[in-house]
Amino acid sequence: MALVHHPVVDKNGQTIAAAVTSLDLHDIARAAKTYGVNAFYVVTPLEDQQELVRQIIDHWVTGVGAEYNPDRKAALALIRMKASLEEALAEIQAAAGARPQVVVTSARMDKSDLSHAALRGLVRGKEPVVLVFGTAWGLAPQALEQADFRLAPIAGAGEYNHLSVRSAVSIILDRALGADRLV
Amino acid sequence: MALVHHPVVDKNGQTIAAAVTSLDLHDIARAAKTYGVNAFYVVTPLEDQQELVRQIIDHWVTGVGAEYNPDRKAALALIRMKASLEEALAEIQAAAGARPQVVVTSARMDKSDLSHAALRGLVRGKEPVVLVFGTAWGLAPQALEQADFRLAPIAGAGEYNHLSVRSAVSIILDRALGADRLV
Repeated sequence: MALVHHPVVDKNGQTIAAAVTSLDLHDIARAAKTYGVNAFYVVTPLEDQQELVRQIIDHWVTGVGAEYNPDRKAALALIRMKASLEEALAEIQAAAGARPQVVVTSARMDKSDLSHAALRGLVRGKEPVVLVFGTAWGLAPQALEQADFRLAPIAGAGEYNHLSVRSAVSIILDRALGADRLV
Repeated sequence: MALVHHPVVDKNGQTIAAAVTSLDLHDIARAAKTYGVNAFYVVTPLEDQQELVRQIIDHWVTGVGAEYNPDRKAALALIRMKASLEEALAEIQAAAGARPQVVVTSARMDKSDLSHAALRGLVRGKEPVVLVFGTAWGLAPQALEQADFRLAPIAGAGEYNHLSVRSAVSIILDRALGADRLV
């Protein structure tokens, strides 16, 4: 999976590079580890933000945090920092032997073409799959258009759908990979 | 639903009163609003922590934050602050005319007696239901024992299960209340 900080949109729909949030990395790495995700790509082109990601990894994976909390270490060890989604795709291709199917997510997806049930099938197929989430107000239109699949937005109980990216990742991983979700 | 900061346990199993985290309130209120939860009880006996909850509500529900982000206002308006879970239960009973069925959650539940499918049925019944989550390392044993039901822990893809409370709330609300979770 990948958490993209650029290109995403702000409140007004302008394309921006969002700041990396430490808690996003912690919460999402823990969910990724819980659901057996192979790697968690944190994508940001900004060098100071890359440095922040490195510091978090250093502290929790190889530094004093690793001894204090081994469970956190196991989760944050899934993080791979990349400057672009393309770099992440290239690494997955090199490791898996095939270019991954790119599934993008957004709460404001105008034209989705993948249901959550279909995603559950897709991740159990032979092809590598990468689930892509955007920070801020979500992935920019060009990122949505270029993907192989556009996942249907999460429908809650009504019109309101303003989940944090941390919540959205957790729910989508559970729907796609949760072993006990139907019992 | 309720987010309990006391009695919960720390890393070593000692009963403590945990600090209120602003981001817990934001993420969980947004998930609660998305899934149509009636009220989000934030339970803490500590007066300084109650003051923090009041400040968050003041800013986002009645203050400048409400105008800046109406979606956030709609979510945080679900928060009801209480000093104890018992106070929350009394308020639900007064509003609903019956004492709620208390469902407690924990990643370390030794003896669960409610499946996620059964919870989905329970919340669609006539009785009011309150879902209770613990902060820190989870609800204290006495809180688990006194409840009407103990929800099965979320099973991910393997042994690892160290979700944040924000993730666990999101997943459990989706399993219990998500309209599109099977499609």
